[in-house]
Amino acid sequence: MNEFDLIEHYFLSNTENRRRTGSVTDVGNGDDCTVLSHLAGRLAISTDTVVHGRHVPASAPAGWLASRGLGSSVSDLVAMGAKPLGFTLALTLPKVSSGWLKGFSEALFRAADLYGIALLGGDVTRGPLTASYTVFGELPKTGRLLTRASAQLGDKVWVSGTLGAAAGALPLFDQPLRSADRSYRARLQLLQAYVYPAPPVELGVRLQADSRVHAAIDISDGLLADLAHIAKASQLDLNLNASAIPVAPALSELYSRPHALMHAMSGGDDYQVGFTADPTWSIDDRMVSQIGEVMAGTGQVFIDHTPADRWLERLATTLPGGMSLATGYQHFG
Amino acid sequence: MNEFDLIEHYFLSNTENRRRTGSVTDVGNGDDCTVLSHLAGRLAISTDTVVHGRHVPASAPAGWLASRGLGSSVSDLVAMGAKPLGFTLALTLPKVSSGWLKGFSEALFRAADLYGIALLGGDVTRGPLTASYTVFGELPKTGRLLTRASAQLGDKVWVSGTLGAAAGALPLFDQPLRSADRSYRARLQLLQAYVYPAPPVELGVRLQADSRVHAAIDISDGLLADLAHIAKASQLDLNLNASAIPVAPALSELYSRPHALMHAMSGGDDYQVGFTADPTWSIDDRMVSQIGEVMAGTGQVFIDHTPADRWLERLATTLPGGMSLATGYQHFG
Repeated sequence: MNEFDLIEHYFLSNTENRRRTGSVTDVGNGDDCTVLSHLAGRLAISTDTVVHGRHVPASAPAGWLASRGLGSSVSDLVAMGAKPLGFTLALTLPKVSSGWLKGFSEALFRAADLYGIALLGGDVTRGPLTASYTVFGELPKTGRLLTRASAQLGDKVWVSGTLGAAAGALPLFDQPLRSADRSYRARLQLLQAYVYPAPPVELGVRLQADSRVHAAIDISDGLLADLAHIAKASQLDLNLNASAIPVAPALSELYSRPHALMHAMSGGDDYQVGFTADPTWSIDDRMVSQIGEVMAGTGQVFIDHTPADRWLERLATTLPGGMSLATGYQHFG
Repeated sequence: MNEFDLIEHYFLSNTENRRRTGSVTDVGNGDDCTVLSHLAGRLAISTDTVVHGRHVPASAPAGWLASRGLGSSVSDLVAMGAKPLGFTLALTLPKVSSGWLKGFSEALFRAADLYGIALLGGDVTRGPLTASYTVFGELPKTGRLLTRASAQLGDKVWVSGTLGAAAGALPLFDQPLRSADRSYRARLQLLQAYVYPAPPVELGVRLQADSRVHAAIDISDGLLADLAHIAKASQLDLNLNASAIPVAPALSELYSRPHALMHAMSGGDDYQVGFTADPTWSIDDRMVSQIGEVMAGTGQVFIDHTPADRWLERLATTLPGGMSLATGYQHFG
């Protein structure tokens, strides 16, 4: 097979993807444009790039660029409560290898299956290894949108999932993972959290539909860093209860309490949603935790009524030396 | 200014862009997603990546990555007859420099102005220099679409613009350009054609609206290579009249007739539209040329009734040695 045939084989022949593409488009892959049809409302759009050697380790297998890239993009749809429809992929490759394309495309379609979305089109070019995803999600035609600017005084602060696992996985990449090791299961769970983000798609749609939920944000740059965006955009303070933060169990097993809490508060790559809701709101979902409240203020985040930065500094003094104090992932760090 | 502020300054502060974004979105830049609203019909989507050092020379100024990237993406919308609405940008940068960002963003918004479209959102990450554009265009809610598969027997073949200029510019990058040179104007025109693609947006919308126009394609991979897609997808032959091909005048001034014709037939980066229309169709636009006809066949392209490949080989024998016989731009060439 030549290079064009390889690309076509790995990206265009997936039967389930063709079916899904057909259900949301009039023209799918293979013409100048994809034509999305049946658009009944508004369309949420988000773009994310994964750079090999930066957002995934240089030694990462092909699939990581797919599962992490698509997961992080879908996470933005979830935070706006949009129902994921599909995505386009701009893939830049230094060379075409069938082994690499097989690993990448299998992981891509596995992730697409998880979200029930279709690869709608894209561009494959030669160059340094990067993958940019643009995802599309449906929103109702009218009604309020779940932005980061709409928190209300008296709201409770909530977060989905458990936190810190992906950040806790970072030091594990260089370590051998043997099933005989005592901490094997916990370490595997952290690595899986890093490699396979699973943003809570159904929860997002449910939050969007409930007018008592006011503001929401994707917390993948770190819980504190992202909740600070809600605080700033809404011009209100957020106070979090440290003891209520849902630290990932595997993280607690492998790290000391302060270290685990640090990862849960400031580690990146938790593709979960942080949101605020009326105090009368509740949910029958043990994967959603109430972690604080919205108070009058100027747009700051507090932990146990201490400014978040100062609280983190204090926590850091209890850690072994050299621990970073970063309060969120810096794209240009 | 820190890096975040620089990015915000150069991409989010443009007043005209904010106005345009506001007119097509409920939520623009700065939240987890952009929310496109007022969607009355179908949405055409296309993605293109520009890799620095590959799609533009390594010595190219920042603006080339903007003008060429956005132009090539909009060209795909034009070929489907969609009315351009906006785009997202995934920009990967090795470092943040205000000079580079200034040059890039100015060229980006100049190109966006040309098409009347808004930068709706994006992602800036650190890594090797590449820019991926995903463009959005509006199409009527119902009715036929202008695909490459719908040519009809007896149609005439048409092409917009003049051809070959961008391909003719490639050898000029390494040569000094002095206004005192005899061929200064012609060389400048070729370079401008390469740097500033200008896909015919209004023509695209007009072709889409006219049911006598049947099939269309963006010819930026080369006239012959792209018309071959129409032939193959429509399962009909296309015969072109060599003497009718609209060779760019500046190209004719700088190159021999066979060399200029070779560029016009097989050179890439002409962001124009090739299309077929009922023989009764005509247009009052001297920038649109009738160049051939659709005949019964198996999906081949002919020039003056000779198979295109053989015709090109014959033309090549009249050229100085070493001339490439490529019949279209190969992304993985």
